[in-house]
Amino acid sequence: MSNPEAPHRVVVVGGGFGGLQAVRGLRRAPVEVTLIDRRNFHLFQPLLYQVATGALSPDEIATPLRAILKRQRNVRVVMGDVRRFDLDRRSVVIDELPNGDQGVAIEYDTLIVAGGSRYSYFGHDEWQRFALEIKSLESALAVRRRIFTAFEAAEIEQDPVRREAWLTFVVVGGGPTGVEIAGQIAELARDTLPRDFHAIDSRHARILLIEASGRILPAFPARLSARAARALERLGVTLALDTEVVDLDQRSVCTRDPDGTTGHVPTQTIVWAAGVVACELAGALAAATGTEPDRTGRVAVREDLTIQGHPEVIALGDMVSVHDTTGKDVPLPGLASVAMQQGRYAARAVRARLRGERSPPFRYVDKGNLATVGRARAVADIKGIQISGTLAWMTWLTVHIFYLIGFQNRLLVITRWAFSFVTRGRGARLITGSAHAAAEADVVSAAPERKNTG
Amino acid sequence: MSNPEAPHRVVVVGGGFGGLQAVRGLRRAPVEVTLIDRRNFHLFQPLLYQVATGALSPDEIATPLRAILKRQRNVRVVMGDVRRFDLDRRSVVIDELPNGDQGVAIEYDTLIVAGGSRYSYFGHDEWQRFALEIKSLESALAVRRRIFTAFEAAEIEQDPVRREAWLTFVVVGGGPTGVEIAGQIAELARDTLPRDFHAIDSRHARILLIEASGRILPAFPARLSARAARALERLGVTLALDTEVVDLDQRSVCTRDPDGTTGHVPTQTIVWAAGVVACELAGALAAATGTEPDRTGRVAVREDLTIQGHPEVIALGDMVSVHDTTGKDVPLPGLASVAMQQGRYAARAVRARLRGERSPPFRYVDKGNLATVGRARAVADIKGIQISGTLAWMTWLTVHIFYLIGFQNRLLVITRWAFSFVTRGRGARLITGSAHAAAEADVVSAAPERKNTG
Repeated sequence: MSNPEAPHRVVVVGGGFGGLQAVRGLRRAPVEVTLIDRRNFHLFQPLLYQVATGALSPDEIATPLRAILKRQRNVRVVMGDVRRFDLDRRSVVIDELPNGDQGVAIEYDTLIVAGGSRYSYFGHDEWQRFALEIKSLESALAVRRRIFTAFEAAEIEQDPVRREAWLTFVVVGGGPTGVEIAGQIAELARDTLPRDFHAIDSRHARILLIEASGRILPAFPARLSARAARALERLGVTLALDTEVVDLDQRSVCTRDPDGTTGHVPTQTIVWAAGVVACELAGALAAATGTEPDRTGRVAVREDLTIQGHPEVIALGDMVSVHDTTGKDVPLPGLASVAMQQGRYAARAVRARLRGERSPPFRYVDKGNLATVGRARAVADIKGIQISGTLAWMTWLTVHIFYLIGFQNRLLVITRWAFSFVTRGRGARLITGSAHAAAEADVVSAAPERKNTG
Repeated sequence: MSNPEAPHRVVVVGGGFGGLQAVRGLRRAPVEVTLIDRRNFHLFQPLLYQVATGALSPDEIATPLRAILKRQRNVRVVMGDVRRFDLDRRSVVIDELPNGDQGVAIEYDTLIVAGGSRYSYFGHDEWQRFALEIKSLESALAVRRRIFTAFEAAEIEQDPVRREAWLTFVVVGGGPTGVEIAGQIAELARDTLPRDFHAIDSRHARILLIEASGRILPAFPARLSARAARALERLGVTLALDTEVVDLDQRSVCTRDPDGTTGHVPTQTIVWAAGVVACELAGALAAATGTEPDRTGRVAVREDLTIQGHPEVIALGDMVSVHDTTGKDVPLPGLASVAMQQGRYAARAVRARLRGERSPPFRYVDKGNLATVGRARAVADIKGIQISGTLAWMTWLTVHIFYLIGFQNRLLVITRWAFSFVTRGRGARLITGSAHAAAEADVVSAAPERKNTG
């Protein structure tokens, strides 16, 4: 099918950590790369929670893909939404192209799919209407809008019951994102905002972190989980462990404790950080192979990250489950470092195949696991060495600055962090993104209650 | 009506340049100040065009009002939309409060209204649907989205006619904002983007600046207008002087030249920077006094900025026309410095009145007029001294850094500018703000044409 004279065409879907590493790993290969992403930028997701709490500006953690790749001559970037794969014709079908075109097919000789993950609501998709996520820049800005609007609303609210609901922040999910966002909201309430408001004391805000298992940060050693829990509690976060969310709506969360008692928490701000599943691309890819994704939506790949029966199709990152030769699922954490290593592996595998060689199976090299818990506190598990406190935080800081793309972004982020550290302020706490949309959303959530209470 | 024991209540509507100066000028006065603004931040509008072209991040030119005023104990900040004034009851009525409340009345002893201006479409309000403005952070981000989407669209567009339309950028209005945005788009196309795209040469982008009068920057001396015009043309901007916009829609602008010939420019990006009129608050204030606003929507005030018959009501900035004792309109430019001087004057007037003194009439001290024309070029008219080129640009730079609020913002902006100056890059060129909304807007604008051409 492919012309032996023409260069080998590699299509990479997704410009996240994995896809970008794959593209860069092919920079000296005799191939023509097409990188397709819905967005025109690479997003440094691990710092998205800082955008959600006004510590960083969106532009500081995102870099235009074209700017990153401008020196790589063998790549073209296409902005568009991949909806369908046709493995027989070796093409991907893109919709939502910037010029309005739909259903444009792009052919490949090798396909690399790196679409990432999204949040799942455990079969309760209706919860998504009421809860906020921290996944895209837009969703992080929606969280920022909601958090700061909640304090504004509490400031003018006369009814003490409603005021308490505005000052209650519920975070669902005790993984790194949930821990980080809960810690940041607590610091906002305790350190940044007290002098900003006169009618309310922002330090009375209640931050509730709900985790279904028995401890937060379940991917970390138990000792570090316990330390993180203590650090969060010192910041004023209330932990609800072994607690399930059984329902949530516009103005409350219903929970079930381990002993079966149900709780009802009135709140206007629910951040959902639980239940990660594969993105829609995994389903599309599974459909193209005639298989079913697993229960978290992931598509199965072999140890060399290729799809069974399609050695020319590689999938990687949070959207795949790697199966070894016996068919057993190889457990891998949902970390940026996994995706990055897999992206580099994919590029090596393509280069090897062009030389007629076979690749050894992918092996994840565990570089460690990090999570911050507020200002100057973190936990780190690096090759079995467990550290916490300021040293872990400095490690976290260094790693994140190092992996952030673009010297300018690094400088801007360091500037903001230095300011926040010294002044305990946050410069980026604007309520933006359609002021009216924000107001309407809040009216929607407040108005029905209004009628009931008065 | 007011209790002699209670402190004098000053309500300031609008946290822009004028309102903020009024609030700050009252920091040591024995008054209770309430500052009402729809937004929770002060926006440094003179740099908004840099957000629109990806040179600065929104958070860098906006500062939370509460952060600015946290040390001023006699002020409370209320986020809400003032819809109506009741001068007899001495109250303002607010809608869209963050907790969903509507129609909340706040009483005053002195009222200061500083609502600013908005764009007008010369009776063609339907044009607003198709043209973009640079007035709020959201609208600047919409411009950014449209500009960078246009280049993305051109890159994949196969049809040469449609590609040319994507690469045509029309700016309507040759005042400072129009000149600045046209210059910035030209620099983007010429310096920043050429290496980012492979299929198109971004330097072939056409930037058309349409001005109804005979020269750009009509508020400047003719010599500086001519210099700015030459600088713009060197950047590749096409000037259409003495040219009127007679119609515009989703994909074109129709113009009429001085000799009566009409032109038709196919384009996907129209930035409207012409025809400033007073904001809606001026109409509401005029209605409350039983008068009519003038033809640009402004409410008339006396030489001491008070409303006729209401010495307790002050209005200022772009939304007012100042009338001298003979009833003649005192011409004042629509500049931040006018609003700031009037804001400080208003605070002095309130303090004087509390001491039982009368204020002398407001007098504008002309500090000069500045406009940039791309990188390292500007024109300045300072107390009759006319400068242009690099010296003017350095003056512009210094003034803008100086007036930007917040030391952190200054540092971040300097960092970004230094980077842009050296690398000719722009860090903040993300296509954000509902990717799907952006895509849909472009689909809407492209789809009908699609049907005609293919």
